[in-house]
Amino acid sequence: MQENPFAVVARSGDRVADLSTPRPIIDEDRLAANIARAQAYMDRHGLNFRPHIKTHKIPALAAEQIAAGAKGINCQKISEAEAFAAAGFEDILITFNILGPQKLERLGALNEQICDLKVVADSGVTIDGLSSKFASSKPLTVLVECDTGGGRCGVQTPEEARSLARRISDAPGLIFGGLLNYPKPGAAVAVQAFFENALSLLERDGIACPVVSNGGTPSLFEAHLVSAATEHRAGTYIYNDRSMVRAGHCSEADCAMHVLATIVSCPTADRAVIDAGSKALTSDLLGFADFGTVVGYPEAVITGLSEEHGVIDLSRCGGSRPQIGEKIRIIPNHTCVVSNLFDTMVFHRNGVVTRVEAVAARGLVW
Amino acid sequence: MQENPFAVVARSGDRVADLSTPRPIIDEDRLAANIARAQAYMDRHGLNFRPHIKTHKIPALAAEQIAAGAKGINCQKISEAEAFAAAGFEDILITFNILGPQKLERLGALNEQICDLKVVADSGVTIDGLSSKFASSKPLTVLVECDTGGGRCGVQTPEEARSLARRISDAPGLIFGGLLNYPKPGAAVAVQAFFENALSLLERDGIACPVVSNGGTPSLFEAHLVSAATEHRAGTYIYNDRSMVRAGHCSEADCAMHVLATIVSCPTADRAVIDAGSKALTSDLLGFADFGTVVGYPEAVITGLSEEHGVIDLSRCGGSRPQIGEKIRIIPNHTCVVSNLFDTMVFHRNGVVTRVEAVAARGLVW
Repeated sequence: MQENPFAVVARSGDRVADLSTPRPIIDEDRLAANIARAQAYMDRHGLNFRPHIKTHKIPALAAEQIAAGAKGINCQKISEAEAFAAAGFEDILITFNILGPQKLERLGALNEQICDLKVVADSGVTIDGLSSKFASSKPLTVLVECDTGGGRCGVQTPEEARSLARRISDAPGLIFGGLLNYPKPGAAVAVQAFFENALSLLERDGIACPVVSNGGTPSLFEAHLVSAATEHRAGTYIYNDRSMVRAGHCSEADCAMHVLATIVSCPTADRAVIDAGSKALTSDLLGFADFGTVVGYPEAVITGLSEEHGVIDLSRCGGSRPQIGEKIRIIPNHTCVVSNLFDTMVFHRNGVVTRVEAVAARGLVW
Repeated sequence: MQENPFAVVARSGDRVADLSTPRPIIDEDRLAANIARAQAYMDRHGLNFRPHIKTHKIPALAAEQIAAGAKGINCQKISEAEAFAAAGFEDILITFNILGPQKLERLGALNEQICDLKVVADSGVTIDGLSSKFASSKPLTVLVECDTGGGRCGVQTPEEARSLARRISDAPGLIFGGLLNYPKPGAAVAVQAFFENALSLLERDGIACPVVSNGGTPSLFEAHLVSAATEHRAGTYIYNDRSMVRAGHCSEADCAMHVLATIVSCPTADRAVIDAGSKALTSDLLGFADFGTVVGYPEAVITGLSEEHGVIDLSRCGGSRPQIGEKIRIIPNHTCVVSNLFDTMVFHRNGVVTRVEAVAARGLVW
């Protein structure tokens, strides 16, 4: 498959070791195991699972997640939902406050196209905008986003959640779809308390709450601690990354994405430079001080990135140091942003390319 | 122009204030002034100017830079050079150590296609690889990359520069093209000393050095202090950004790129959330602690980005605070990486769209 008019990325049967770099590659066996493990956990605890496709943006992978048992998918913006609706997905939740005439227009078209579209709102402004659009068409399902500690969007109290749930219920063209949070990892007790309180307020008002949606990969395997939740959303778990290893969610052996890079320069004994910079790995630190783990060289530190170069400090390495021309593998800090930089993703089993998928929703602006 | 199958980004004559967000926009007058000011400075000091197209990746803008008087263009990877060669550019310098069979193959094709292709090398490994490819075809011009303080690639001493210059001169298929550095801002004295010493060693050996290429936007207006240089390379100056304001290269009024974003949530009195996250602004900090300057709200601080959300701390703002639904403009920390995230770039004059250009070399992997 080509991702630019000038070069073929890879073909099935190619050896991964021969690919041109920089190049993210996905291990099929780890991918399948990550999908199966998370789904088995959700099944065991009776939770609906809604994978977030922002991590991979590839319809074929979402199809594997659905085939494993996931109920539907989670998108973060309209363009992602449009790409996945075009690929045949019918149960799509967009976890964003959607505002503005162009987005409302596209949301309207999407709601006509698929059977089960849902969005979130955390303010009267968002709800009023949605209601103005959907009053005279097929109604739209809206969940109330709650800030249970994540510190991003979301109402601050169960009382506000009740108030917005009522406003949605009363709004022409809208259906109250439930409660949802942007999770803070490891905060199950606070999440449970917020949802429980909100649910009892809704019950008192006679407002049915069909869905309580919790989320996040870091605390995926603690999802059962939030018994108020009916579903869990997670994205990164499918590939995993360095931040998920640190969070205790997985081990390095569960990281399905490696970024292949070539050592292009060793200007000093202690400095190597690779052809993967911020336009391949991104500058996401996620609390780390460096830009990824170099597989096989645990003492090597990727200290800096410019756009197409990465600088590696080898001073803590012993005698085993990578040489000019050598290909290395990097576990990126954050897989979801790496996916966003590549038009195609290469998959392999035991180092032999199995398939190349278009990153269908990549680069689509809102 | 469309950048995805589902939405039109903008048309000439649209009001920028009406565009869907997030959306980088380029002010035509600032753009033209930035091009003219840098070129006038180079002309005044008799320096050839070679703009780095990684910042914009748009052939039409490189054509404006050439029309203003630039000698040729600088690319950072083969795919950029391929895209610009396809658009008709003939004088292209790729400032990278190019290794590996696929890249050498494409470099060979490019060298047949355009009249004046140049690359760099900082090791015998790179030179030997290039020589093996070009020995039996049209020769390739290779400059020696010198580390004059930038701490990335490059030979460490003038003696090593001489040694590699000789190796290039002696290699079948290669032509020694000169010396080049990856600059450390504000280090003109050290750069001059390195180049002077290397030049005198080359002269002693009877090796002609046609080009001495210095670079960087932060110290662009100090380029004349490096009298050994024959040309200067710079990318960011065309758009400018927050890091260039901090470096003293320009003022906020010279920043041609703003990123439009919408306030989508105000969960607390002191927190606003925008629809521009790391997939619009990138996580590039470049030494800042936050992710851009909010135009018109100087006390607002973009404290955190997730992929599609940005969190703004308003606690230091007085009574004037952005409201849900309001569009704000952000001066990004780093323009070059923002360009890399959008398939199209919208230009405007006084808030009215003038043109929409494809970011031709965006998303092309090496």
